[in-house]
Amino acid sequence: MPDAIRYRPEDARVATRFAGIRTFMKLPWVTGDLTGADFAVIGAPCDGGTTFRSGAAFGPSAIREMSVMLRSGNLNLDVDIFRYLSGVDRGDAEVNPCDLRDSHRGIERAFDDAVRQGVLTIGLGGDHSVTLPQLRAVARRHGPVALVQFDAHLDTYDTENGSGLTHGTIFRRAVEEGLLDAKRSIQVGARGLFGTGAIRESEELGFTVIPAKDVHERGIEWTAGRILETVGDRKVHLTVDIDFFDPAFAPGTGTPEVGGFSSWEGLKLLRSVGGLDFVGFDVVEVLPSHDPTQITAYLAGCVVQEFLAVLAAKRRAGKEADRG
Amino acid sequence: MPDAIRYRPEDARVATRFAGIRTFMKLPWVTGDLTGADFAVIGAPCDGGTTFRSGAAFGPSAIREMSVMLRSGNLNLDVDIFRYLSGVDRGDAEVNPCDLRDSHRGIERAFDDAVRQGVLTIGLGGDHSVTLPQLRAVARRHGPVALVQFDAHLDTYDTENGSGLTHGTIFRRAVEEGLLDAKRSIQVGARGLFGTGAIRESEELGFTVIPAKDVHERGIEWTAGRILETVGDRKVHLTVDIDFFDPAFAPGTGTPEVGGFSSWEGLKLLRSVGGLDFVGFDVVEVLPSHDPTQITAYLAGCVVQEFLAVLAAKRRAGKEADRG
Amino acid sequence: MPDAIRYRPEDARVATRFAGIRTFMKLPWVTGDLTGADFAVIGAPCDGGTTFRSGAAFGPSAIREMSVMLRSGNLNLDVDIFRYLSGVDRGDAEVNPCDLRDSHRGIERAFDDAVRQGVLTIGLGGDHSVTLPQLRAVARRHGPVALVQFDAHLDTYDTENGSGLTHGTIFRRAVEEGLLDAKRSIQVGARGLFGTGAIRESEELGFTVIPAKDVHERGIEWTAGRILETVGDRKVHLTVDIDFFDPAFAPGTGTPEVGGFSSWEGLKLLRSVGGLDFVGFDVVEVLPSHDPTQITAYLAGCVVQEFLAVLAAKRRAGKEADRG
Amino acid sequence: MPDAIRYRPEDARVATRFAGIRTFMKLPWVTGDLTGADFAVIGAPCDGGTTFRSGAAFGPSAIREMSVMLRSGNLNLDVDIFRYLSGVDRGDAEVNPCDLRDSHRGIERAFDDAVRQGVLTIGLGGDHSVTLPQLRAVARRHGPVALVQFDAHLDTYDTENGSGLTHGTIFRRAVEEGLLDAKRSIQVGARGLFGTGAIRESEELGFTVIPAKDVHERGIEWTAGRILETVGDRKVHLTVDIDFFDPAFAPGTGTPEVGGFSSWEGLKLLRSVGGLDFVGFDVVEVLPSHDPTQITAYLAGCVVQEFLAVLAAKRRAGKEADRG
Amino acid sequence: MPDAIRYRPEDARVATRFAGIRTFMKLPWVTGDLTGADFAVIGAPCDGGTTFRSGAAFGPSAIREMSVMLRSGNLNLDVDIFRYLSGVDRGDAEVNPCDLRDSHRGIERAFDDAVRQGVLTIGLGGDHSVTLPQLRAVARRHGPVALVQFDAHLDTYDTENGSGLTHGTIFRRAVEEGLLDAKRSIQVGARGLFGTGAIRESEELGFTVIPAKDVHERGIEWTAGRILETVGDRKVHLTVDIDFFDPAFAPGTGTPEVGGFSSWEGLKLLRSVGGLDFVGFDVVEVLPSHDPTQITAYLAGCVVQEFLAVLAAKRRAGKEADRG
Amino acid sequence: MPDAIRYRPEDARVATRFAGIRTFMKLPWVTGDLTGADFAVIGAPCDGGTTFRSGAAFGPSAIREMSVMLRSGNLNLDVDIFRYLSGVDRGDAEVNPCDLRDSHRGIERAFDDAVRQGVLTIGLGGDHSVTLPQLRAVARRHGPVALVQFDAHLDTYDTENGSGLTHGTIFRRAVEEGLLDAKRSIQVGARGLFGTGAIRESEELGFTVIPAKDVHERGIEWTAGRILETVGDRKVHLTVDIDFFDPAFAPGTGTPEVGGFSSWEGLKLLRSVGGLDFVGFDVVEVLPSHDPTQITAYLAGCVVQEFLAVLAAKRRAGKEADRG
Repeated sequence: MPDAIRYRPEDARVATRFAGIRTFMKLPWVTGDLTGADFAVIGAPCDGGTTFRSGAAFGPSAIREMSVMLRSGNLNLDVDIFRYLSGVDRGDAEVNPCDLRDSHRGIERAFDDAVRQGVLTIGLGGDHSVTLPQLRAVARRHGPVALVQFDAHLDTYDTENGSGLTHGTIFRRAVEEGLLDAKRSIQVGARGLFGTGAIRESEELGFTVIPAKDVHERGIEWTAGRILETVGDRKVHLTVDIDFFDPAFAPGTGTPEVGGFSSWEGLKLLRSVGGLDFVGFDVVEVLPSHDPTQITAYLAGCVVQEFLAVLAAKRRAGKEADRG
Repeated sequence: MPDAIRYRPEDARVATRFAGIRTFMKLPWVTGDLTGADFAVIGAPCDGGTTFRSGAAFGPSAIREMSVMLRSGNLNLDVDIFRYLSGVDRGDAEVNPCDLRDSHRGIERAFDDAVRQGVLTIGLGGDHSVTLPQLRAVARRHGPVALVQFDAHLDTYDTENGSGLTHGTIFRRAVEEGLLDAKRSIQVGARGLFGTGAIRESEELGFTVIPAKDVHERGIEWTAGRILETVGDRKVHLTVDIDFFDPAFAPGTGTPEVGGFSSWEGLKLLRSVGGLDFVGFDVVEVLPSHDPTQITAYLAGCVVQEFLAVLAAKRRAGKEADRG
Repeated sequence: MPDAIRYRPEDARVATRFAGIRTFMKLPWVTGDLTGADFAVIGAPCDGGTTFRSGAAFGPSAIREMSVMLRSGNLNLDVDIFRYLSGVDRGDAEVNPCDLRDSHRGIERAFDDAVRQGVLTIGLGGDHSVTLPQLRAVARRHGPVALVQFDAHLDTYDTENGSGLTHGTIFRRAVEEGLLDAKRSIQVGARGLFGTGAIRESEELGFTVIPAKDVHERGIEWTAGRILETVGDRKVHLTVDIDFFDPAFAPGTGTPEVGGFSSWEGLKLLRSVGGLDFVGFDVVEVLPSHDPTQITAYLAGCVVQEFLAVLAAKRRAGKEADRG
Repeated sequence: MPDAIRYRPEDARVATRFAGIRTFMKLPWVTGDLTGADFAVIGAPCDGGTTFRSGAAFGPSAIREMSVMLRSGNLNLDVDIFRYLSGVDRGDAEVNPCDLRDSHRGIERAFDDAVRQGVLTIGLGGDHSVTLPQLRAVARRHGPVALVQFDAHLDTYDTENGSGLTHGTIFRRAVEEGLLDAKRSIQVGARGLFGTGAIRESEELGFTVIPAKDVHERGIEWTAGRILETVGDRKVHLTVDIDFFDPAFAPGTGTPEVGGFSSWEGLKLLRSVGGLDFVGFDVVEVLPSHDPTQITAYLAGCVVQEFLAVLAAKRRAGKEADRG
Repeated sequence: MPDAIRYRPEDARVATRFAGIRTFMKLPWVTGDLTGADFAVIGAPCDGGTTFRSGAAFGPSAIREMSVMLRSGNLNLDVDIFRYLSGVDRGDAEVNPCDLRDSHRGIERAFDDAVRQGVLTIGLGGDHSVTLPQLRAVARRHGPVALVQFDAHLDTYDTENGSGLTHGTIFRRAVEEGLLDAKRSIQVGARGLFGTGAIRESEELGFTVIPAKDVHERGIEWTAGRILETVGDRKVHLTVDIDFFDPAFAPGTGTPEVGGFSSWEGLKLLRSVGGLDFVGFDVVEVLPSHDPTQITAYLAGCVVQEFLAVLAAKRRAGKEADRG
Repeated sequence: MPDAIRYRPEDARVATRFAGIRTFMKLPWVTGDLTGADFAVIGAPCDGGTTFRSGAAFGPSAIREMSVMLRSGNLNLDVDIFRYLSGVDRGDAEVNPCDLRDSHRGIERAFDDAVRQGVLTIGLGGDHSVTLPQLRAVARRHGPVALVQFDAHLDTYDTENGSGLTHGTIFRRAVEEGLLDAKRSIQVGARGLFGTGAIRESEELGFTVIPAKDVHERGIEWTAGRILETVGDRKVHLTVDIDFFDPAFAPGTGTPEVGGFSSWEGLKLLRSVGGLDFVGFDVVEVLPSHDPTQITAYLAGCVVQEFLAVLAAKRRAGKEADRG
């Protein structure tokens, strides 16, 4: 069966991890036809939507640099990812460092091309604004999707500092564009908001909001339950803003917010909603310039690895069911 | 009602956060008459009392730098601070970099001036020795107060390295000077002590001591209960040494101590004792030179923000009661 | 005579440097009428024009932080600045983090307001694109000016990465807008160019270009001579991109270029052209996130201090001439 | 009784901590006869066995640098270590930076010399490969011992990147050499493995394995119970890989793994197995080049301090029993 | 003519530099047939030969990360490199993190394969020991070559810390293996030696040695003259240890030595010997863990760029001669 | 002859440099009788006299950490130090972190003890105030000495920020105490002064002052000549403030000043005045918290090594003269 897997990393137990060009997990760099790939990692090196610290445009590169340490095995789900999945690194979308809308067009093109070919896209940000063009690509194929958002913020302001298009407004824009089924969408971990009215504004758009406080007080399992219940069987785009995690665990981000979650909690939450029907995924807001020990970039890579493990475990379960 | 609020920050949803002179939260810088202000933030840039890493004199500046990211809204208490409170940044006290006692005199003058005008002072340290002159100013107006101290240390040694006045001796000095009602005072989070006798020595001064171990094992709510019970209705100065938090959450401090608390735990504890009658507050021991990702400075700012939210929520409750 | 000086810093020999709100050199923060001021420092916290590392929006704050170490005395010119000059910090221009043109409008407004009041403006960047709105303000009052540019780059591309407005295109735009007298303008220190044709393109716009190689081989005095000769008696805006200096001296910048100049060489060059008729000045491209030891921010402050000393020495010379 | 203690640190309440040559805890540096010492700290500055980030050879020095902040008192166990224990710093083993086997010979000699003299050795790594020569020294005296391993990895691969001797293979080698009683040995905290089969391979060697997931889900007390049950009354070498802790708490390590443990959890686990019969101890994989705030080095020192406190508390209990 | 150039980077004036997989200069990654390439960049991520700080194995990746800022144009030589040269990134050699000799075999294989195909190899270290296998590959094709070595050290010890194969012994080994024509070889910049006899030892092997002092006192041109005179028309391998530069310019290296050279001096020296007949080139000893501002990695890339510009200028001169 | 040398470092060509307790250059740590030693290195870990960034108290430790890379051989003077000199590390003076005068007493005691025993002391600071107690010890034995000061500052203010005893006032104090023969003393490199009158004030005390500008414009040799001429045959204490060097070369210092000197220039100047009759030496103001790449600490160590080489070369010359 594994020989059916076309694209996988070198075996890191054999090939030295610190050697080689930095593709994500040292997966093959495939720029053309995606036949034979289940997923494609695509960088979205754009930080034109940021309203505080900038520099997230270097996020994809930093994530790839540490991703060479990621391994195929995932103990939490007891699965070896590349026995069940085939994946590639597709490089980065074309961006325009001085024109956010133009960058978004480039990102949309890159994701659209992959989505059309039927692979699941794994976006590496970039500031959170890069999720908007990803949703455009995803919704073009799948129709309005549910959003599951792990994030210290809601990103549903109407305008921020005079702009309607920032990393803090994109999910309002996505609703307005009809990309999301807000009623099936849920925002988890909010704690850094300009005012207390922001939650209400997000709810008025249709989103369910679980502030950080509720996650802390009711626990990861309760939270997962709320997510599963809200989304149901809707197709889902899962977006993980690395600032969902506490700054202790993810210092390298543009707008860190204290009172966040540990790496264990975040990965557990991700696994706990593994049963959803994912059609898109991204991790955003890694800021290498504030990540001197690289733990943020590595955590972002681990979030991707956990997500891939979820997919692999489902694929395995499917195969076992077939054989059953 | 909000128009009764004289001093508040710009609306960060409108004004770009990274623009502007760095006052705390971009509050107005008011150096003279404080009429119309409920609180005044005052820096105490002094590290002459430190016995290990120095550099905390740059703490106030570092806290202000990151404080531009703080927002008026506080989700944990569901309150918008500046609907209920008016506050200013008063700049820094005058200090003498080579004479600790002279620095303390300058700090006392700065706080005394504000306390006399009836505003609540928010001190930004500086090493923990700066709390002593603050207590002098507070006690001059309010008489001996209860101390609530979140700290990895007790700071009640008699002498340290040959000096009677260090950041490790000040609360003994404060008791001796009659500034504190030690019987109503409580020290929470102790774990970094030279010897096991130190707790006993602190207790002999009258303090109640809750070591870190008890907080970990019995929980935040139990701890809050012990604090409320000890202090009762005494007027309180709350002092937060940033090393109360684990070094993972607050690496930038002079004497970090492992086995500490998460940012969530610390802020929750603070909220949980919100019912106390506060007359003074400070956060100390931020060391920018060991805070490359600025998470410590930001956490210190968040501690202040949480405290302000507590005050605002009480003010709101009072107004609602009035209207009731 | 000194009592005629309205705005000056505290005497740093008396007032502790690390205490106090961080205005530039701890000058008074004056936001309204500028009567009595010779110069006004204005921050332009904008990095929307950057095409490589971003983060220069935090430059003004970082320069101010280290500027508290700057002193009134300048040994190289044997002058005490504030015996002859009066100056203020005007804070930052309003910017829009996600809209470069809007930021430029805000910057233009801030500088225009000061220029109109007859003070010389000292701009603190920000990426180099912020010089464009400064030139608009300067040229509105003074007509097309000569540009003297110390810079590793020319910033006269037509487009860069698909944008016509970046930190690499602004001086072409300035020529097109009629803000500059390019024939009287000179670019010094170029070494980081995409292609060798770039110099020719700049020359075709009218600029004189002195590549880094010529400065190294012919020396600072020769270079100064070329500048003086080119500019003549034209009114001058002097713009210093901190990447003029070698990365050893100024690591904290967005596009460092090796083979640059020492701090001594740069300051000497600045002094050597002190006889020019300056009507505007700025220092740009300080990137705090890559400046862990703060030497870049401090160097930028020293560049300003040297420029102020040049002005002061000229003022002194004028006074002495009056008395003569 | 205390006067029977031959070697102890200066009293840090008297002697300034940041003064003096950096021996561990400022203990006496004793290179010859160890009579009168209960334990000896020995550095193993070797990173030739590392397969990812190197630099752990500077670990012993970094641990010593921060160890001057360690204190004799331990609140968790309510014991003053040097009332019951006498200890020295023996400096570092001789190593060969370019020959791992030669380094291991030097390390074995250094530990063997101390073990023969009957003192308990405290090893400071170095990459985890340095535990192998320590086990050789320990087993020569005590016969095959039980291993208790706190670690994100298992280190029981057969080969890694073409080498049979790396920091990832040493415990397989130790079993093959008859140094360990694998049936009595236990590995706690595993989460970073190349494949899911690695646990089975370790179990086939005889080890009991408790993955990180089980520790998180069942708790520290359950884990301690499993350790005590597995080891029984076997003599034990306890090895703590600092990557057992989450990267938030220990960023400075060669192969950080997210989803790890807090400092409080780790120290509690250590205390909870204090009843074991320890004959060797080491802490490894501190990487100073990725530890800008020194919190990893300090945590490693605190792990040693907690272990010494465990020993001291047992010694005290023994004395009390004698008196009883 | 340019259309004859098969492999070149994207035009960085069009394609955003921070986007894309990090190959050197964003050159095509070509792993098979090298037809059509003039040069091939090959990483040698090995630090098993280091005797002080380790971590240079991450050097190739760090150089590539910053190399995206390198441009085709070189002003010093007034040449656009890729009008005359075609080049690729071949990725990294296979290395064994725990076995230096095995790593050297892998490096030799990688370079040998490229050298056999007739391309000039550009090695990116790694510690200086990686030059030895490069010389083996070069000498296999070209016979014993002249070595031109820019370096703070001589690397001709017989043994170092008990090993005969370290980054400090390799050029003695190369002489013994007959890879070098020592009489035609020259070592420039020496200043960090264990004893004053080391120069004599190097001279006894046949090398000409120019200590740093002579370069400083007699200048770059004199030094270049000595190099040209020594080497004559011998085929040359030029090896640049980044520690040739002063730590101010290249802090990120394993054994920095003060009293070194500026970036301008080093690049000028390189250009000044451009007339030599180069058959191999490498730059080594970049240590990313000590390069927080990336200036060392960038300088290493600039050294390569300057070397490529030298080659391009010669190619241009040849073409012009052909046309003449 | 070498066997007459009692105390020397291990041979670093044999003993691995990164192994071992960090004494200076890994010299023997000798705390009692100094018979057989020519020099003694003594740390003065005190920063209570600092008026800007603090943290220099950790300087001695940081210098020692990097000093393990220093070698016995000095190429510039062609001498192997420990063929002619015997030296020890004496550890640190006792200091009081919160009482500057008490620290000075401890430092004076430590140096006095060594000076009395007839060894030359090598002080490692600490802020520059630590030179005052060293001068007391030196002058007690040798009478008033000449001071040769390499420094960006003069340190002859009368008071600074309200204190008469700071790192900026000590040489005025030394003159007042009769420790210096100011007429024979010389201050080289001044550039960071509060006002232009400071030079005059220093000259009025008797000092000769050579500002940085003169050194730059007239060169190292001219400067050396001025020093030799001023001092004549007076006994000399040479004090090197690391801020004499430009921040590019020595970023890790409390009050960096741009426009300074390269490492080559500084060491050359030191060698050029080697003929003076030295009776004391220190290097001060190393600030590890701002020295992430350790180049400042290493430069400080190299300054000591160069000074020792000067002494060794003189000793050699004397021996050769004896034999002549």
